[in-house]
Amino acid sequence: MEETFAETWLPHRVSYGETDAMGVVYYAEYIHYFERARGAMCREANLGYGKIEEAGFMLPVREVECRYRSPARYDDLVLVHARIVEWRRASVRFEYEIYNEDRTKLLCEGMTLHAVVNREGRPVAVPEWMKETLSRKKDAEQA
Amino acid sequence: MEETFAETWLPHRVSYGETDAMGVVYYAEYIHYFERARGAMCREANLGYGKIEEAGFMLPVREVECRYRSPARYDDLVLVHARIVEWRRASVRFEYEIYNEDRTKLLCEGMTLHAVVNREGRPVAVPEWMKETLSRKKDAEQA
Amino acid sequence: MEETFAETWLPHRVSYGETDAMGVVYYAEYIHYFERARGAMCREANLGYGKIEEAGFMLPVREVECRYRSPARYDDLVLVHARIVEWRRASVRFEYEIYNEDRTKLLCEGMTLHAVVNREGRPVAVPEWMKETLSRKKDAEQA
Amino acid sequence: MEETFAETWLPHRVSYGETDAMGVVYYAEYIHYFERARGAMCREANLGYGKIEEAGFMLPVREVECRYRSPARYDDLVLVHARIVEWRRASVRFEYEIYNEDRTKLLCEGMTLHAVVNREGRPVAVPEWMKETLSRKKDAEQA
Repeated sequence: MEETFAETWLPHRVSYGETDAMGVVYYAEYIHYFERARGAMCREANLGYGKIEEAGFMLPVREVECRYRSPARYDDLVLVHARIVEWRRASVRFEYEIYNEDRTKLLCEGMTLHAVVNREGRPVAVPEWMKETLSRKKDAEQA
Repeated sequence: MEETFAETWLPHRVSYGETDAMGVVYYAEYIHYFERARGAMCREANLGYGKIEEAGFMLPVREVECRYRSPARYDDLVLVHARIVEWRRASVRFEYEIYNEDRTKLLCEGMTLHAVVNREGRPVAVPEWMKETLSRKKDAEQA
Repeated sequence: MEETFAETWLPHRVSYGETDAMGVVYYAEYIHYFERARGAMCREANLGYGKIEEAGFMLPVREVECRYRSPARYDDLVLVHARIVEWRRASVRFEYEIYNEDRTKLLCEGMTLHAVVNREGRPVAVPEWMKETLSRKKDAEQA
Repeated sequence: MEETFAETWLPHRVSYGETDAMGVVYYAEYIHYFERARGAMCREANLGYGKIEEAGFMLPVREVECRYRSPARYDDLVLVHARIVEWRRASVRFEYEIYNEDRTKLLCEGMTLHAVVNREGRPVAVPEWMKETLSRKKDAEQA
């Protein structure tokens, strides 16, 4: 059976504070959107990031990349897609795509690479339960 | 007949980027929440802030106040209540209350006072249509 | 002898990320400037906020107020004045004024009221050493 | 003669608002630091970004990358190095390195790729004067 990793679509309304003097969403704000979407994904998989921290793990970001295609503007409803694309021994990679409201236009896409570390901040192997919980799709869980 | 001004409740999920090293939501972020909620209120009244700008008006903030009661934390779902409480000749006053998810705890409350200005930034009298549109409750409009 | 409380002037360069689609600094950013200036003030008094936390105290904000007079724009160098204006039994009040580069124009002014709490978050009386350290001006200390 | 592109070192004090619940600077804030440093670089070359916009050009970001090595914390003074590393026909690439105060530790490094567009947002060839102005080092200018 093919392994499926968690994914989610998060709708997000662009606020005025997220725009800049160019009249569009400031480039660093999309990096916040990435975080909102991967947080939503973990929460939907019933493993909110708070639970991960309670279990003694943190997932600090090691790398981020973002390619900007088309700007979002004030009051736009954007759709942020997040999914896990790869588990390595001690890290996990997420990919993101942000679309306009009717999904006809890709606004930006990117990725984050996260280390898995313990409370002391030392890299540790990904616990099997973490990988499993985040590898079942929400729908599959309910089936 | 009693005049009723627009109001709304906006749910908002606290992101990691909104927290600070004290482990709670950073104090300036609540001011962003105020903006999100008054934007939602205007949009629900079918007079999104973008439309106000297209009509040649801006509502720059003249004053903001916020009193912090109890902190919100990462991943909390908070409820932001916004309403217009007073129209003056050339300004409008909003009040806000932010509650925890089940509305049992008031997290903070505050207000913003906005000038009504034209494209050149000069204060102008509140247009009657603006006041009217934002004075009907959403439910009343649909009745 | 008259008691003098700590104060400081902090220069700050407006970044693009601090502006909004109106072409000016977003209203919540000034609240960040307040924090930068009171942090600088504590650091100059040789009692950086980190030291206050190490000593077992936190100064969570209970109230903030800001009145906006004139907007700052991208690349402006603004000057943020912060000073302590009042010590109460278990709280301290800061006031702020933000000016343009040559101090000919007041951009905004405001205040923050902070509780003094211990590590458990309980309000405690202001320790005498804290008040004393933050009550000597930098110049006076060096004299 | 070897061509030299503009570069700068920008000191930046970490504010409390830039930290997150992990006790370190939030990952998107470094992207703001990149912007502060390239803005400083342009300003030092006497071609502040405001002047670029007045001349009818904008430099929207097309790509950003950041690799995180070691976290910065509240009140740290970090040093942000920015330099132009490549001019293409219609774009320009900046690279960044952020160090701790005594430059003994690399905190993060990254790059941004910017299109050169006109007021209508259409890509245009890099004007020769822009490339020249940003290709002389500050010291060289003063010699």
